[in-house]
Amino acid sequence: MKIGVADTTFARVDMFKEIEPILKNAGAKIARYTVPGVKDLPVACKILFERHSCDIALALGMPGAMPIDKQCSHEASLGMQMVQVLTGKHILEVFVHLDEGKPNEILAIAKNRARKHALNALALLKGKEALSPFAGKGRRQGKEDEGPL
Amino acid sequence: MKIGVADTTFARVDMFKEIEPILKNAGAKIARYTVPGVKDLPVACKILFERHSCDIALALGMPGAMPIDKQCSHEASLGMQMVQVLTGKHILEVFVHLDEGKPNEILAIAKNRARKHALNALALLKGKEALSPFAGKGRRQGKEDEGPL
Amino acid sequence: MKIGVADTTFARVDMFKEIEPILKNAGAKIARYTVPGVKDLPVACKILFERHSCDIALALGMPGAMPIDKQCSHEASLGMQMVQVLTGKHILEVFVHLDEGKPNEILAIAKNRARKHALNALALLKGKEALSPFAGKGRRQGKEDEGPL
Amino acid sequence: MKIGVADTTFARVDMFKEIEPILKNAGAKIARYTVPGVKDLPVACKILFERHSCDIALALGMPGAMPIDKQCSHEASLGMQMVQVLTGKHILEVFVHLDEGKPNEILAIAKNRARKHALNALALLKGKEALSPFAGKGRRQGKEDEGPL
Amino acid sequence: MKIGVADTTFARVDMFKEIEPILKNAGAKIARYTVPGVKDLPVACKILFERHSCDIALALGMPGAMPIDKQCSHEASLGMQMVQVLTGKHILEVFVHLDEGKPNEILAIAKNRARKHALNALALLKGKEALSPFAGKGRRQGKEDEGPL
Repeated sequence: MKIGVADTTFARVDMFKEIEPILKNAGAKIARYTVPGVKDLPVACKILFERHSCDIALALGMPGAMPIDKQCSHEASLGMQMVQVLTGKHILEVFVHLDEGKPNEILAIAKNRARKHALNALALLKGKEALSPFAGKGRRQGKEDEGPL
Repeated sequence: MKIGVADTTFARVDMFKEIEPILKNAGAKIARYTVPGVKDLPVACKILFERHSCDIALALGMPGAMPIDKQCSHEASLGMQMVQVLTGKHILEVFVHLDEGKPNEILAIAKNRARKHALNALALLKGKEALSPFAGKGRRQGKEDEGPL
Repeated sequence: MKIGVADTTFARVDMFKEIEPILKNAGAKIARYTVPGVKDLPVACKILFERHSCDIALALGMPGAMPIDKQCSHEASLGMQMVQVLTGKHILEVFVHLDEGKPNEILAIAKNRARKHALNALALLKGKEALSPFAGKGRRQGKEDEGPL
Repeated sequence: MKIGVADTTFARVDMFKEIEPILKNAGAKIARYTVPGVKDLPVACKILFERHSCDIALALGMPGAMPIDKQCSHEASLGMQMVQVLTGKHILEVFVHLDEGKPNEILAIAKNRARKHALNALALLKGKEALSPFAGKGRRQGKEDEGPL
Repeated sequence: MKIGVADTTFARVDMFKEIEPILKNAGAKIARYTVPGVKDLPVACKILFERHSCDIALALGMPGAMPIDKQCSHEASLGMQMVQVLTGKHILEVFVHLDEGKPNEILAIAKNRARKHALNALALLKGKEALSPFAGKGRRQGKEDEGPL
């Protein structure tokens, strides 16, 4: 069980630090790949899958607060759709937008979202119905769950 | 006849529960795959097609009410276009946007849309002209049909 | 000469009825595929090309009037770009947006656009310069030609 | 040296007429393909590359002035990205938007842009550094060069 | 170690001049490809990878200040996602938007961004963890680093 983690130097929080102990504690091997920004994450994940034999990947990014940054994160996300579709492997996108809150809120969101998605990655590796007991339960990453209607 | 159903833990309604009896009643085998959010659905459907031999898939998702959520659902939909085009198999998108109505309305829309698309999936499996008697009839899923002009 | 026609149950006008006599009159074989909505058209066209040996396809759709409908038609159109690029065959998109006019105008636009694109499909099958005498002539489908500047 | 030129019946200016003498004068063979609108250009270029052995293509289009036309030209442009990436050949997009000016301005823009891109196509065929002396020089097609900062 | 650099005649600053000495000083071979505008960059990078054996590419572009220019840069960026995903090689996008500041600011941003991304390219060639010490550090290209939260 090998998990790829791609992250960026653009981000203002080291989210890798949050997830490493969770993944290691579960007995997973980790391959890390650090790139400049979110648009560099898709091909990094492709390389983690093809050259480093990862079974799943986490893409950690922190897009800026300007309109052009939304466009960049959109391009990154579409690139990750392409990689997932071509490789048949999941990339869990852990993106925290710099306009999601004040600096201290961003920090808390980033830590929470990274940890919860690390657990999601471990669950997906267990099988396609590992998360089924939680389907439709209004789970959230980065904030409190909203719960079912 | 095997139908894949991909759903999410982000959704606030368990739409799988609505469609399971309809599909089973029609004699279809079901393979379920639960993922965190809508952007994880495309590769889940690809896996349902390639590793679980599904003939068609239903993608059940419930995007949030913020502008960024519209962007996410757009990325998910484009990923599902890629999967369909590459595999030559249909994915019926059963998305209910959390800004489509008040909570109790959302619940009713979700149940109605899920059931109607389950029937659409069964019809598509019968052949390419199974739905032709209804072409141009203004059918809607999640609300009342609008009917032909 | 075999022409695929994909249409939807979402549309409020049966555009197939308009084009069938035009195509038959020209001696073309027709394969029809009816799907729920516009986002289901791209893979339907792919199937018409690959399993039903169509040489060209017409995709008949009628996106709704809300902003989310514009997003859906955009996703459908991009899916059709993918199919055309991968198969090397034309899909003529006959989309009528429900905000293009009042109900009776929509009906007239739909009939006119469908008929004119049926003729375009027949012309494209004749060769790559069959339409060249009309290049730059400001032709329109669904309304009057604008003519050259 | 064979240059593909794809154009549309939707355009209101026959831009092919502007570029044909430039390309012929340079000794290039020309293959022309006329389609209804800009969304039909990508697969036309693919066909020009694969069935007509063109080395490069010019895509001449004139998108309308409404918001939906911007969406269409965006879809056409993305389709042309797909074709270029898959074939490894350039498509120079010569698009003139009908909201770029008044009718007589549009005519002048179209002629100027078409001619300058015909010269660009010839330059690209000479080699990857044929345009390097002009890199960063603020060249424009359809209007006056802006020049370097 | 061979680095591809694609640039444009549309740009108003010769960014190649800024990065050439940095890359040469590091012992890298350089292959340059100059095209008209940003939408021509993706296939240029594909050609640099496939015909010129480059290991990584820098794409230097300067999109205009109008809304249509944002659309063009978006199309270019998506084309570069496609190239990266299909080739498994990085393209570092060095785009300076002409609305990022006044002319003299643009010049300074362009030089700074080009130089920093040249260094990023060299780092990525050293290995997937060469940039890991800087992950989450809020690095910026074209302006001052923002630093970690």
